Amino acid sequence: MSLKHPYLLFLGNAVDQLAAKTANGVARWRPDWCVGQLRLEDCHADVGLPDMRLEQAREAGARTLVVGVANRGGVISDIWMRTLMEALELGYDIASGLHHRLNQTPQLRERAAALGRQLFDVRYPEQVLSVGNGEKRPGRRLLTVGTDVSSGKMFTALAIEREMKSRGMAADFRATGQTGIFIAGSGIAVDAVVADFISGAAEWLCPENDADHWDLIEGQGSLFHASYAGVTLGLIHGSQPDRMVLCHEPGRPHMRGLPGYPLPSLRESIEMNEAAGRLTNPECRVSGLSLNTSGVSESDSEHLLKAAEDEVGLPAVDAYRQGASRLVDGL
Amino acid sequence: MSLKHPYLLFLGNAVDQLAAKTANGVARWRPDWCVGQLRLEDCHADVGLPDMRLEQAREAGARTLVVGVANRGGVISDIWMRTLMEALELGYDIASGLHHRLNQTPQLRERAAALGRQLFDVRYPEQVLSVGNGEKRPGRRLLTVGTDVSSGKMFTALAIEREMKSRGMAADFRATGQTGIFIAGSGIAVDAVVADFISGAAEWLCPENDADHWDLIEGQGSLFHASYAGVTLGLIHGSQPDRMVLCHEPGRPHMRGLPGYPLPSLRESIEMNEAAGRLTNPECRVSGLSLNTSGVSESDSEHLLKAAEDEVGLPAVDAYRQGASRLVDGL
Repeated sequence: MSLKHPYLLFLGNAVDQLAAKTANGVARWRPDWCVGQLRLEDCHADVGLPDMRLEQAREAGARTLVVGVANRGGVISDIWMRTLMEALELGYDIASGLHHRLNQTPQLRERAAALGRQLFDVRYPEQVLSVGNGEKRPGRRLLTVGTDVSSGKMFTALAIEREMKSRGMAADFRATGQTGIFIAGSGIAVDAVVADFISGAAEWLCPENDADHWDLIEGQGSLFHASYAGVTLGLIHGSQPDRMVLCHEPGRPHMRGLPGYPLPSLRESIEMNEAAGRLTNPECRVSGLSLNTSGVSESDSEHLLKAAEDEVGLPAVDAYRQGASRLVDGL
Repeated sequence: MSLKHPYLLFLGNAVDQLAAKTANGVARWRPDWCVGQLRLEDCHADVGLPDMRLEQAREAGARTLVVGVANRGGVISDIWMRTLMEALELGYDIASGLHHRLNQTPQLRERAAALGRQLFDVRYPEQVLSVGNGEKRPGRRLLTVGTDVSSGKMFTALAIEREMKSRGMAADFRATGQTGIFIAGSGIAVDAVVADFISGAAEWLCPENDADHWDLIEGQGSLFHASYAGVTLGLIHGSQPDRMVLCHEPGRPHMRGLPGYPLPSLRESIEMNEAAGRLTNPECRVSGLSLNTSGVSESDSEHLLKAAEDEVGLPAVDAYRQGASRLVDGL
C-alpha cells in the first residue's frame, strides 16, 4: 500500500472538529502533501487548508482524495457518495480509514475498476505477512510506548522524525495506525492483522536499513491496557527497538475505557516495557518521556515535566509545546 | 461453533503418524465421542479406533466427520473430496482445521447448503467479538502457559480437567487451538482472531460461572517467543487466571523455530507470567509445573522433576506419565 500525494482532504459533513481529527493530523504533519480541504454543507470542521472543489484541487495536482473524517458507525454516508464517485471520474484514487470498506461498496469498486483508479482501505492490511522471525537486522529503531492508550505516541514519533530531519539525520516515521498511514503514505494497521502475525507485521514495517538510519515507529496500545496489550507486545518484539520513548498524560483518573484500572507509575511502565523489549533487543531501553500536558497551564506543565524528570532521571518534554529536541539529544 | 458428536475421525492418506496428530489427540481425550477412524489407501497412521466406512459409522451414530489429518500446505486433497462429498450425502456435518477452508470449496459449500449440513472451519473464528473489557467475573480459572511453544499446554489443561472431573469437581476445558476445539466441541482459535480482539476472545471463551467452577484454559505460544508472545499476553489478560501451570520441555537447545533464542529459566518465566497475569487478576500466580520428559528414561524424568521442584518450590509433574493429580492438589 503506497498512497500517491498530493492529497485533497475530504472533511465531508463533519459534526465537529474532533470528527476530522484524521484530516487534522495529516494537515499538521504533511502540509506540503495537502493542496486543500473539501467540505460539504454542514461541515463543522476546518483544518486550516484552502477550501477547494474536486476539479480545482485536481488542477492543483491532487492525486488522492483522503477521507479524513469519521462518523458514527464508520459507514460511507450517502451524502459522501456523490463526491467520491465524482472524484473517481476526475482521476483521483481514494483512501479511507473507515470501518466500512471502499472496496466493499459495489458502486465505488466497479467504477474504480473500470477507470483504473485505486481504493485504499488503510484500516485493513492487505500485505501477505509472515510470522515474526526475531532475527536482528541493521539500522536503528525507536518505538513510542505509552502508560495508556491515546497518550501521544503518534505525535511523539512524528515530532522526533521532524527534529531528526531538521538535523540532517536519516529517519523515517513508520505508521501502525490509520492516521499515521495517511501521514507516512504507507504502513500497516497492526491492530487489524491476524493475531499470529503482529510481530511479523512489525518486522515488515521497519526492515533492515543503513546502520545510522532511524526508524521512528508509531506505538499502539499499552502493555498496561487490558484490551490491547497483546498488540503492544507483538509490536515491541517485532520492531526490536534500540530506544523507546514513554508517552504519558498526567492526571488521568483510570486507564482509558477501563474504570477501576489505575495507570501504572512511570517507573513501573519503564521496567515492563524494557523487559519486553529486551527479548528481541538486549540493548533496548527507555531514553525519554513525552508528556501530554495540554490540559494545564504553561507553568504547571513545567512543574509536571520537572517532577517526571526527577522521578525517573530521563529527559521529559511536552512534544506539542516544545518539540522533541531534548528527546533526540538524549539518544 | 458447536460440533455435534459422536465423531468419525478421517485420517485420509496420512503420510505418517504425526500427520494425524489431531485425530490422535481427539481419540486420546474423547474416546467416548469417537465411533471409529476412516483411513484411505496409503494411510500410514492409526489412532487405535475401529476402522469404519462412512455408512457403517453413520449407523453407529456418528454425526460429524472430523478431518483429523494435516498435509503439506493444508489443502483439501482431491483424494479426500470423494469421501467428503459422500459424507454430506449420508448426513454428516464436516469439521476441519486445515488452512484451506471447507466453506471456500464451492463443491462442498453448495452441496452442504442444499442438504442442510454444516461445515466447520475451526481455524477461522466466526464469532462477532468485542474488545476485552477487563471486568472481573465470577468463577475460577486456570491457564496453562509455557517457557516455549509446543510444550504441552493443551495436554496439561486436559489432564487437569480429567483429574478434576474424576474428583467430582465442576470443570471445563476451554479450547484455544484447532485440536482443542475438536476435543471440547467448541472454542476459538485465538491466534487467528484480529489482533485487537485477543483478550476479548479470551473473555468470550470463559465467561462468568459458578464460584466453584474451574475453567481450564488451553494456553497458546509463550511470552518468551518472539513470534507469538502478543497472542499469549492477550490470552493471559482476557482469561484472568487465578492460577497458571507452567509447561516446559527440558533440554531444548533454543526456542522452537528461533535459533539464537535461549529458553528462559523457570523462575524468570514464572515471574514474567505472574506479572502479566496480575494486571487483570491481582491474585494470579503459578501453582505448578508440567514437564514434558518424554525424551528421557523414567529415572531421569524423576530427577528432572525433583530438580525443577527444588528450583522453584512448586509441585512438578510429567502429566503424560503421572497425570495431573499433584497439580490439582496444589490448588
